[in-house]
Amino acid sequence: MDTRERIIKTSLALFNEHGSLNITTNHIAKELSISPGNLYYHFRNKEEIIRFIFDRWVLSFDRLWQRESSIPELSDLVEIVDKSCLLFYDYRFFYLDLPALLSRDKVLRERYVKNKNIRFRDVAKIIDFMNNAGLLERPLSGVERDAFINVFWTGTEFLISSMYIHGEKITAGNIRIRLLQFRFLLKPYVKPAVWTAIMQLLAISD
Amino acid sequence: MDTRERIIKTSLALFNEHGSLNITTNHIAKELSISPGNLYYHFRNKEEIIRFIFDRWVLSFDRLWQRESSIPELSDLVEIVDKSCLLFYDYRFFYLDLPALLSRDKVLRERYVKNKNIRFRDVAKIIDFMNNAGLLERPLSGVERDAFINVFWTGTEFLISSMYIHGEKITAGNIRIRLLQFRFLLKPYVKPAVWTAIMQLLAISD
Repeated sequence: MDTRERIIKTSLALFNEHGSLNITTNHIAKELSISPGNLYYHFRNKEEIIRFIFDRWVLSFDRLWQRESSIPELSDLVEIVDKSCLLFYDYRFFYLDLPALLSRDKVLRERYVKNKNIRFRDVAKIIDFMNNAGLLERPLSGVERDAFINVFWTGTEFLISSMYIHGEKITAGNIRIRLLQFRFLLKPYVKPAVWTAIMQLLAISD
Repeated sequence: MDTRERIIKTSLALFNEHGSLNITTNHIAKELSISPGNLYYHFRNKEEIIRFIFDRWVLSFDRLWQRESSIPELSDLVEIVDKSCLLFYDYRFFYLDLPALLSRDKVLRERYVKNKNIRFRDVAKIIDFMNNAGLLERPLSGVERDAFINVFWTGTEFLISSMYIHGEKITAGNIRIRLLQFRFLLKPYVKPAVWTAIMQLLAISD
């Protein structure tokens, strides 16, 4: 692994363990047993490291959502849920420090909002597809769909913060349990057979 | 207004404007044109001021939820929504600084979780009442009800943080618009006539 990649891996691990606000470039250099000068050769400052990690995080979500086929299968949706839990866990510092990070770095905030809008469109596309494919028991209006996505987004954006506040242990498994509570948002809208199929794919029963 | 009350009012205003993490007892004393010694006579430290504000915030919510009549009317629910928006706004610093405040002060965290559990029971009681009174189109199971309340709680707990992150102006009016998006969680569950009545009381149309 080259130095640049080692810096990213180590920074991510330290941020996740101690919070990005408590870690300096000196901590990172020390952990890697390299000089601060060597670190600065690769990244100008902590902000640049965080932006790099952010871009990688966005890329992972892009890959997850941009499926080969344009028509999503139910199993694709289930894969998105399961892999999202791992991404939430792998980049957990980001969720916990979100307000502080975005208030300090306007470039990061712009990228964040841009990514959010893309994810919104992704979810809207899937709901529209389910609407048109007759998978829904009760079709959603545009306003209803957008409100639905908004509620879902706020809930997942702050899922890890909520676990933290209430003293829950932040593990990939616990994130999955919490995330899957959101399935009840979907329940009244999908046809019973679709609901059963999704629950079977997720390997849970109601 | 006595000095103690002036300290509380001024602290709350400064916390809301600048964030509680950026305000010291010196800032508060200076704003009030009193000596730090005088402030310390009333409150030992910032933590004590924050706990006092927290208790007042909880009391306001208690009053809002503990209605005279044991059977809630729809108009009670609407009043709770509207007055909650004002409470969210009046104590907005608390929502924004929540993770930091609760990680620093175990006493506050205990009180917070205790209050959360009471609010959970309040909402569960209302849902059970609606279930039993035949106001629901589709009754909720216990698991479904609890998941529903959890999603709702996380969404409202971080409503102001979400507005802040996405650069929305935090006003009581904007909080109401965002909070009312959660009405769509309720829609599939209540009978159409109940839905229409609630929307009329909230003075909004779908």
